Amino acid sequence: MTSNTSLVIGANGQIGKKLIQHMLDADIKVKAMIRDPLQAETFEVMGAEAVIADLETDFSFAFNGCDSVVFTAGSGANTGFDKTLLIDLWAAIKAINYAVDHNVQRFIMVSSRGAEDPDKGPKRIKPYLVAKHAADFALLHSRLDYTILQPGRLTDEPGTNHIQTQRPENAAEQKISRDDVAACILYCLQHDHSIGASIELFEGELGIEQALSVY
Amino acid sequence: MTSNTSLVIGANGQIGKKLIQHMLDADIKVKAMIRDPLQAETFEVMGAEAVIADLETDFSFAFNGCDSVVFTAGSGANTGFDKTLLIDLWAAIKAINYAVDHNVQRFIMVSSRGAEDPDKGPKRIKPYLVAKHAADFALLHSRLDYTILQPGRLTDEPGTNHIQTQRPENAAEQKISRDDVAACILYCLQHDHSIGASIELFEGELGIEQALSVY
Repeated sequence: MTSNTSLVIGANGQIGKKLIQHMLDADIKVKAMIRDPLQAETFEVMGAEAVIADLETDFSFAFNGCDSVVFTAGSGANTGFDKTLLIDLWAAIKAINYAVDHNVQRFIMVSSRGAEDPDKGPKRIKPYLVAKHAADFALLHSRLDYTILQPGRLTDEPGTNHIQTQRPENAAEQKISRDDVAACILYCLQHDHSIGASIELFEGELGIEQALSVY
Repeated sequence: MTSNTSLVIGANGQIGKKLIQHMLDADIKVKAMIRDPLQAETFEVMGAEAVIADLETDFSFAFNGCDSVVFTAGSGANTGFDKTLLIDLWAAIKAINYAVDHNVQRFIMVSSRGAEDPDKGPKRIKPYLVAKHAADFALLHSRLDYTILQPGRLTDEPGTNHIQTQRPENAAEQKISRDDVAACILYCLQHDHSIGASIELFEGELGIEQALSVY
């Protein structure tokens, strides 16, 4: 059994890829969980181990030899709400259960701003927020060392390494780059004081370390 | 504040209507929660109090003066999975939270056979089973005195007052009439030994009292 290996679920997503590069740069061993074998080479060239697994079937074997997991998978904006139930909710619940079963104690969940109270979110994404709420709830009531990150609307702007964890009043400002989300995940993975925290993430003026050191 | 009043969420559903008649026959005061004011008269003629509330908005006021609640609402088979998320999951979670907030300690959830492990259910209804699983999980982790009833495929056959709680191997036999589900809900409402139990319900050979007395 290897040690200090982190499983990234949703490795081929936009946050996943950036995160894995950050992790490898920080000398963290990475298992990149992907669905399509054709994606494996990309991750192996980067220096990660690729694990081929499907979120809609049994993916428990991916947890072997890991001591932390990051769930950053999502069904995406272009699928039906059946997939919201099957991926954003059910695959997340299964990941939590697998982590418990495999003693993978550290679990970082990439959730969403507004998941705490879907009634207050935009009506269009409310069903999605309900799924994220229930996934977060399952993690909160697990025995795992969790951190729940709830980023605002994701952008492709370059990362600034500066964020804030207070939600801006202006909805248009409730956004953050995927780059900065990836950097925040890495910080949490490396800092156990974030265990037990649920943290909203937006672009801001504070260095990531300064903003997250209070949790 | 009235006492011994039970709130039925999903009163106008097929199980809800039968249940309310059973409850009134047993001298239980009923608040029948319905969406459409035009449905009110039916329930008032029966002897129930009608409460007009929408599961997709704030329905907390419906809990006032109640000491138990039965959740038997569902989005139905003819709506999209957005409604599965908004009604079967989110409205159930909200009902649990409202019950906690209003000290409505007794909560009976009408769930579904297979909600414990959606992976083993028919693929067609898997997203629905995921929603029911997460709703049941929220109730299991609440501070409420819950009973979770997980009936098999619902039929409109006349009730027999005979059931079994062991799942038949043959999928075609995993069914139960709405009449008998309503009778089982009433039994649980009247018998606190069912608190803390999750019980599958199928048609069978045992009297309801005999089948449920072991929980």
